[in-house]
Amino acid sequence: MTDDAFDSSDAARADGDLPYARTLSLPGPLPLTLGGELPEVSVRYETYGELNAARDNAIYVCHALTGDSHVARHDADDAPGWWDILVGPGESVDTNSHFVICANVLGGCRGTTGPASIDPRTGRSYGGDFPRITIADMVEVQKRLLDQLGIEKLRAVIGGSMGGMMALTWAVRHPERVDSAVLLATTHCLSSQALSFDIVGRNAIFKDPNYNNGQYYDREKKPDDGLAIARMIGHVTYLSDRTMSRKFDPDREHPRDVAYAYEKEFSVGSYLAYQGGRFVERFDANSYVALSLAMDQFNLARDYGSLTAALSRITARTLVASFSTDWLFPPTHSRRIVDTLMAAGKDVSSLVVESDCGHDAFLLENDLPVYGPLVKGFLEQAAPEPEATGAASPDADGVLPAENNVRSIFFHNRLDLQRLAELIEPGSSVLDLGCGSGQLLSLLRRRGSGNLLGLELSAKAIVDCVGQGLRVVQRDLDRGLGVFADGQFDVVVLSQTLQAMRRPDAALREMLRVGRTGLVSFPNFAHHAAVRQLLERGTSPVTEGLPFPWWSSPSIRFFSIKDFENLCHELSIDVVQRVAIDSATGELAGEDYNTRADMAVCVLKRATDFTSEGGHP
Amino acid sequence: MTDDAFDSSDAARADGDLPYARTLSLPGPLPLTLGGELPEVSVRYETYGELNAARDNAIYVCHALTGDSHVARHDADDAPGWWDILVGPGESVDTNSHFVICANVLGGCRGTTGPASIDPRTGRSYGGDFPRITIADMVEVQKRLLDQLGIEKLRAVIGGSMGGMMALTWAVRHPERVDSAVLLATTHCLSSQALSFDIVGRNAIFKDPNYNNGQYYDREKKPDDGLAIARMIGHVTYLSDRTMSRKFDPDREHPRDVAYAYEKEFSVGSYLAYQGGRFVERFDANSYVALSLAMDQFNLARDYGSLTAALSRITARTLVASFSTDWLFPPTHSRRIVDTLMAAGKDVSSLVVESDCGHDAFLLENDLPVYGPLVKGFLEQAAPEPEATGAASPDADGVLPAENNVRSIFFHNRLDLQRLAELIEPGSSVLDLGCGSGQLLSLLRRRGSGNLLGLELSAKAIVDCVGQGLRVVQRDLDRGLGVFADGQFDVVVLSQTLQAMRRPDAALREMLRVGRTGLVSFPNFAHHAAVRQLLERGTSPVTEGLPFPWWSSPSIRFFSIKDFENLCHELSIDVVQRVAIDSATGELAGEDYNTRADMAVCVLKRATDFTSEGGHP
Repeated sequence: MTDDAFDSSDAARADGDLPYARTLSLPGPLPLTLGGELPEVSVRYETYGELNAARDNAIYVCHALTGDSHVARHDADDAPGWWDILVGPGESVDTNSHFVICANVLGGCRGTTGPASIDPRTGRSYGGDFPRITIADMVEVQKRLLDQLGIEKLRAVIGGSMGGMMALTWAVRHPERVDSAVLLATTHCLSSQALSFDIVGRNAIFKDPNYNNGQYYDREKKPDDGLAIARMIGHVTYLSDRTMSRKFDPDREHPRDVAYAYEKEFSVGSYLAYQGGRFVERFDANSYVALSLAMDQFNLARDYGSLTAALSRITARTLVASFSTDWLFPPTHSRRIVDTLMAAGKDVSSLVVESDCGHDAFLLENDLPVYGPLVKGFLEQAAPEPEATGAASPDADGVLPAENNVRSIFFHNRLDLQRLAELIEPGSSVLDLGCGSGQLLSLLRRRGSGNLLGLELSAKAIVDCVGQGLRVVQRDLDRGLGVFADGQFDVVVLSQTLQAMRRPDAALREMLRVGRTGLVSFPNFAHHAAVRQLLERGTSPVTEGLPFPWWSSPSIRFFSIKDFENLCHELSIDVVQRVAIDSATGELAGEDYNTRADMAVCVLKRATDFTSEGGHP
Repeated sequence: MTDDAFDSSDAARADGDLPYARTLSLPGPLPLTLGGELPEVSVRYETYGELNAARDNAIYVCHALTGDSHVARHDADDAPGWWDILVGPGESVDTNSHFVICANVLGGCRGTTGPASIDPRTGRSYGGDFPRITIADMVEVQKRLLDQLGIEKLRAVIGGSMGGMMALTWAVRHPERVDSAVLLATTHCLSSQALSFDIVGRNAIFKDPNYNNGQYYDREKKPDDGLAIARMIGHVTYLSDRTMSRKFDPDREHPRDVAYAYEKEFSVGSYLAYQGGRFVERFDANSYVALSLAMDQFNLARDYGSLTAALSRITARTLVASFSTDWLFPPTHSRRIVDTLMAAGKDVSSLVVESDCGHDAFLLENDLPVYGPLVKGFLEQAAPEPEATGAASPDADGVLPAENNVRSIFFHNRLDLQRLAELIEPGSSVLDLGCGSGQLLSLLRRRGSGNLLGLELSAKAIVDCVGQGLRVVQRDLDRGLGVFADGQFDVVVLSQTLQAMRRPDAALREMLRVGRTGLVSFPNFAHHAAVRQLLERGTSPVTEGLPFPWWSSPSIRFFSIKDFENLCHELSIDVVQRVAIDSATGELAGEDYNTRADMAVCVLKRATDFTSEGGHP
């Protein structure tokens, strides 16, 4: 364990004075969601960059459980901010072009009204009598702050963890005030497991003999042990098993000598003692109880009847990112949000960042090379006049650099893309399965289609797409399209992807359930050049259309145009148009297409209805 | 949340009197691993079944952290035991044929000497002065108990979680006294994450104002809140996220009214309050501290210099099972034990049980249909005269029922198995990659090979193998053979498996690194019947040798005998023998094997050395 292990992954590093912070008293009392009101609320906030004349370049940053308004340093002499890696001049949240606002949340202990504040009705701290607050109440305070600042609409709201809950609440409760929302490592409702850790932590606080029902501000002793134990539990949940092993296993039984009076048997024990002990120096137990309860109570499905009802209110573009080893706000939760948004036809892009760092990943530099450009690309598209960044865009003829699409087979002449685009009526809604870096979607957008969505596995390709302002969601296509409604899209496309799928039959069924029309392009295994090799050389073919050796090909299914058509027939799918292409000479007609074409593009329709409900045509 | 949710997953259900338990005072003081001694130790134990005349049918059961001697009910009127589902007449640990012993561990609070016992030197309870004990000390007490009972050698020792640590310690420290060991959901050393939860729990106990350095037995109040909080944390780690969601999400915000004074905001909160509150009624905080510290200190790699040094001492047959959703003692830990045993050439079989139930799975009925037969099959093979159970055994000609090997292609006539067996010199050590239900391994065993090991993915096939007394370890072959040393086996076999692998090139390299000889059987894609279909019908072939349609075949690689030989050449592998087979007519010779054979068996040798170290031949 290195010494700096003790200082990492702490959401709020900034202590002491925050000279750039301002405190604003909001007018009037604040009625609370769960009843009652706060007679007065003041809010401590910081801003970065300049609000433009149109007042439309504001980004609101929501902090997590124990963060504060000091999201980034204001200058070289300023104290470090908790998100310096993401927010600043030239950073992903670029304060050169955006006006960034961050405020301490309602209920906190870093300048905004919270349990330690004086209740004007009694003249003493609220303590344990601080009323129950919700994430919605916190967002209401933020909205009132924006009202005071004269900001009608946010270009973006962004937050991770509990901050993501607020960003999501912004988009759901005030759709008219949010252009886009970035939701990192968050959920619409904590799991029972995550809830459990909060509950045990609060029990530790409540059972601390110095807790005194929260009235401890005028006493010598505070419930430090209870708060430290709550923090220790929380801290473990912010890390991943892998991170902990890397940090603490090498000198597992050699604790560092720390000044705090907790068990120090193991290196990780001294770390927890340090983290717990240090936390109580900067945080208030009542705030921990109030904020963690608000987080635990958060449940959009309950508040709006269903998650679909809640998320259907959203009009903002949304970007949802989670982290593979986050077990507190796991990727499955982000996926549920994404699935619900997709099913409702909303504008969503999404990525699960492959990470070692657990829940804290969104605060750490380790995975910044992935989520930084993702956020940056998304926010730049939030500007009024989006322009493609140029990354991986095909030129007008659809000619693409080879490295941009590992699954594609015709690198030098992606005839099929142009072909596919021409077969799609302008204005159609299109789902592109395995969209790569968005070559087809870009073509379609240029041709005037608005409602476009890509599914893709590669993180790099997804970052590319988002940077071009394309909507793309990370998905393993072999796991099906269950999230989409029957007939949700005019057209569903499988471009040079079917041959890499485990179950092409299931894929075709699903594409024709979800789309009214299916478009598939694939290499033809019965092409004369391929068959000749097998026949004459007795070896598995390697041709321009099938360029990989048999032992390392991304393709795992080998079929001819006839095979494909036979399967369609078996699946009650009509091949209403077949374009057989000899990529050397162009399009083909006639009876011998199955031997002369090296690829095909087929337009598919359901012969009979086989949507999941059946019945309706 | 149903009411029975409150009572599940509790390792020790038995409270009150245990009329079948006996208490034995062990002779002499007990010197302790970490220094000091206990002047006297008594041990409370229960036995089941009858010790046979040869005194060689004893199975020792080790309990987990909070268990006790009452592993199972003795009769219908007896209190439930904590492992009734596994131990009893006719059960997996069959008390009709075995003499089963289980004792409360040293340091416990259920009858064996622990912190609440009277220190004869002071006349009062040890309390916080109870000396530091280790898992090895616990095993030493168990060994002395066996000495008293006149049992020289255990047919098996079995344990899960901390009990697995003891079973492992038995096999390492006293190899001469253990015939076989069953290690469930365990580890040779807790992860830093798992350690953290124990540490926070102990801190909660130490900071309880009633803890009083562990001297609380003569006081009115005990550190109940601290112990309850420790238990709540522990309890969460015993469950899986999925189990908790299923139990508590449906009525997330409707807690049950429980009698214990802890937060009851959420259904899972009332559950934790109940579990925490109830636990302190049956368990002692000092025991919790002593036992959890012993578990946390457990580290075989430290004690013996390395894990390899520790596990190399083992002579017992071992069965290692873990559970897919166990995040406290995760499958990766079991895998490390298994890998080390395999690398050391030890007798090990292993399975990761697909389970929803987290760490507690080994105590619950849910996955018993998998791990029950696995344990039963393994223990039955531990009898002096093992006999194959007959499950899935091929008849003398190697003819197999089709359903036993989904990857195989020649269901009606597995010519290649007989072929492969004949090509292997009796007595060779053999690694069978993708061994299925052990058909080839059975043939080889009958021909006199002793050192046989199979790798297989299917749980069902593994249970079959273990039931026949075959050694098999669960493994995804696409993840390589990194665990094995260069040249560790005389022969490595890939029987009808290569065509289902993602990277056949990597697989061949690895098999020739690990084995001095490689044996591969595979279908020939250039077989005339296959090529004819492609040529004449223009469709992907479906033949006897390639029986699946292109869209659902388990095969994902298609290659001819020539392709295979070309790849071997490229990999510097010599094909020293090739048996080309026309399965309709028999073996083939001559130039046209690549078109006439529908399958091949090849014997491979390295042309040049490419073991990982290089250099030595």
